[in-house]
Amino acid sequence: MSEKTKILIIGSSAAGFTCALTARKYNKDAEITLIRKEKKTPVPCGIPYVFGTIHDVEKNLMPDQALANNNIKLVIDEVKAINRERKTVSLLSGQEMDYDKLVLCTGSNPIKPPIPGIDLENVFFAKKDVEYLRQLLLKLETVKDVVIIGGGFIGVEFADEFRKRGLNVTIVELLPHCLQLAFDEEYCVMAEEKLRERGVHVITNNKAEEIIGKNGKVEGVRLASGEELKADIVFIGIGVRPETTLAQEAGLKIGEMRGIWVNEYMQTSDEDIFAAGDCAEKFSFFTNKPTGLRLASIAAREARIVGVNVYGLRRKNVGVIGSFATIIGDLGLGVAGLTEKAAKDAGFDVVIGTATAPDKHPGTMPNCKTLKVKLVFDRNTKAIIGGEVAGGSTTAELTNIISTMIERKMTMDEVATFQYGTHPAFTCSPVTYPIAFAAEDAIQKA
Amino acid sequence: MSEKTKILIIGSSAAGFTCALTARKYNKDAEITLIRKEKKTPVPCGIPYVFGTIHDVEKNLMPDQALANNNIKLVIDEVKAINRERKTVSLLSGQEMDYDKLVLCTGSNPIKPPIPGIDLENVFFAKKDVEYLRQLLLKLETVKDVVIIGGGFIGVEFADEFRKRGLNVTIVELLPHCLQLAFDEEYCVMAEEKLRERGVHVITNNKAEEIIGKNGKVEGVRLASGEELKADIVFIGIGVRPETTLAQEAGLKIGEMRGIWVNEYMQTSDEDIFAAGDCAEKFSFFTNKPTGLRLASIAAREARIVGVNVYGLRRKNVGVIGSFATIIGDLGLGVAGLTEKAAKDAGFDVVIGTATAPDKHPGTMPNCKTLKVKLVFDRNTKAIIGGEVAGGSTTAELTNIISTMIERKMTMDEVATFQYGTHPAFTCSPVTYPIAFAAEDAIQKA
Repeated sequence: MSEKTKILIIGSSAAGFTCALTARKYNKDAEITLIRKEKKTPVPCGIPYVFGTIHDVEKNLMPDQALANNNIKLVIDEVKAINRERKTVSLLSGQEMDYDKLVLCTGSNPIKPPIPGIDLENVFFAKKDVEYLRQLLLKLETVKDVVIIGGGFIGVEFADEFRKRGLNVTIVELLPHCLQLAFDEEYCVMAEEKLRERGVHVITNNKAEEIIGKNGKVEGVRLASGEELKADIVFIGIGVRPETTLAQEAGLKIGEMRGIWVNEYMQTSDEDIFAAGDCAEKFSFFTNKPTGLRLASIAAREARIVGVNVYGLRRKNVGVIGSFATIIGDLGLGVAGLTEKAAKDAGFDVVIGTATAPDKHPGTMPNCKTLKVKLVFDRNTKAIIGGEVAGGSTTAELTNIISTMIERKMTMDEVATFQYGTHPAFTCSPVTYPIAFAAEDAIQKA
Repeated sequence: MSEKTKILIIGSSAAGFTCALTARKYNKDAEITLIRKEKKTPVPCGIPYVFGTIHDVEKNLMPDQALANNNIKLVIDEVKAINRERKTVSLLSGQEMDYDKLVLCTGSNPIKPPIPGIDLENVFFAKKDVEYLRQLLLKLETVKDVVIIGGGFIGVEFADEFRKRGLNVTIVELLPHCLQLAFDEEYCVMAEEKLRERGVHVITNNKAEEIIGKNGKVEGVRLASGEELKADIVFIGIGVRPETTLAQEAGLKIGEMRGIWVNEYMQTSDEDIFAAGDCAEKFSFFTNKPTGLRLASIAAREARIVGVNVYGLRRKNVGVIGSFATIIGDLGLGVAGLTEKAAKDAGFDVVIGTATAPDKHPGTMPNCKTLKVKLVFDRNTKAIIGGEVAGGSTTAELTNIISTMIERKMTMDEVATFQYGTHPAFTCSPVTYPIAFAAEDAIQKA
């Protein structure tokens, strides 16, 4: 490959942005171009927090300056087609750009369910679109009742933020519990209790059958139970669908979970085209089967695999563990790997260990919260395959410790005796540190 | 061994307490007895925080109730001698108690340096003694000027707490920097800047030559530079010495660093006697050489090795990594494994990687702080051997992620692509997560 490898990246959210910067880190001379439709890109995970915490869409933008600082060319244009034979892309502006390696980071779009009334005015989604989000923010100034359809991460985070504005918020979730696809039941219950404590009206096991409107505007939501909820705004958060139009039109292979198929090097079915982030198919670390999990942290990691592999296949993707966290009021909830339910569904014979302790020590330290940890082990190999955390400000990093342990396939005994440090203001006591003690608990049951 | 194994544990700080509870976990029937001199035991790491945060010695006690709840007999008495032939210990009360396995958790004592004036009234140490600490707390009500001799963890934590009371605090440190045995210079400088910002007077590269007194009471400290500091109280925090009197008198082998020698199973030179915690010799994870590091978290871990091994040698001690953290004002500082300097001193050819990012995302989130990470890799094996963190409330758990990576001997590339999760309120952005990005930085330099 020539010194001036031409790398073309489509999309600039977590994956595209990180891929460009990584590719630059690994090659000072490559011609790296990032193409996107949008003038500005919101920080994806920050989107809910615009509405009750940051209060300004402009304060939640990807830092484009980093692109310029790293000699990455930013083109605001829309790719209309990939011409694999010529190794070019055609832009809406009429331009054609050639590439040595093309990276698809086209992301995902919120799923728009086929409910009557879905096209009414004041039905909103978590679109990664600055102008659209600004409209939602403005609209919130004038409304009172919000119904959120979908009690997953997005729905729950928006609910909590909308409450911070004093709005009257109702979540409608189809499954028996909010966050049920992410956490085991006892953690979902903690989430729901905290949502209710925060004043969110939580309706589960029920279905939004129709969005009711008048003069083209939302007025309410009718549930399968017959109940009608008043609504000035309806927010839909029921998941995302990978954006794969370009890839499909170019004849690239699409995976079972609707993502662009990739191999362990993140190459698509065309070896000069890579994909990373929400648009790419994901495979489970545990089963190697396709998985629907889509997170910015996964996107960024995949992008750093691709950012190296565009110069030669060096980094392998071992499959998605999935480590993530959320916050409701002051309650942090995190999960890494498989929940107990997911592990059983995947056929694992599991051993569960749990532990609870104050998250500072002694428990009389200020702002002390209760920390709960649940670990899931494979009974056969004794390896840790999952963990859930409920706690305070350290919830996400504790979840990341668990994720690291899962990736290194640590056994119960290795987890029980791992070398943690402690401090009164920052952690549980050394004699109760729950990750280690949950492993001790599991050993008793193995 | 009979079902009713008699396990005798001497000492009930982090090691003794944890050893007793672990031994119970692994055997419902064993006769477990914990002997200690003190009626109550303070939480060791909480001691500094009694003086500016908790304001009550009684709110920083080890939870003895857990012993009763777990059918562990607590004996308040002093062991005068170990009779290895008879497998008994003689108590001050005249009683003799027999054991199948004896565990020494006799801890350590603050070092009392041979400075003139050291025995004056109002010279204090960080003694793990409830009544003594209560006296210090009372005394603080009536004083203004405090000189702390020793700028290590204990000295720095007491300084910060004394400042919270509004006292006039001066630290005198012999070395060029505070915390110099724990951190690399740039982290020590951050600590000193924060101490000064908090109003602590920091004097380094200077020696306390004499504690000056009048009528038997402290009045000041004379430094090697000739300067005299006014002092109502002098606090000494220059380190600890393992308490090994009983072990020595029983003829047990003592290590180079003055701890009770132990093998990888934490057995002393008598196979029926174990040792754990500050009294036990420590060996480095990296070099297998004796190390002077003594922490409650290390003690608790060793205790969980011993608590299992009293029933058969199952758990091995792989050597001390050392993961710990401290706080000065709102600045968290953490370190795991070897600093750059310690690694070089130990003969490693090192590669350093650094990264800095806001500890929430976007950086406009409330209470966002700057997070700095420095990682130390072995150039030959590419394995991570150390890391330092400066940040906010997640400092210690981030340090624990690094510690986990060190223990699992993760390479630069594995660290760079490890599977972390992120959340706006809890972590850095996925596109800047500093542990991964410090590893990317190191790869560029390797």
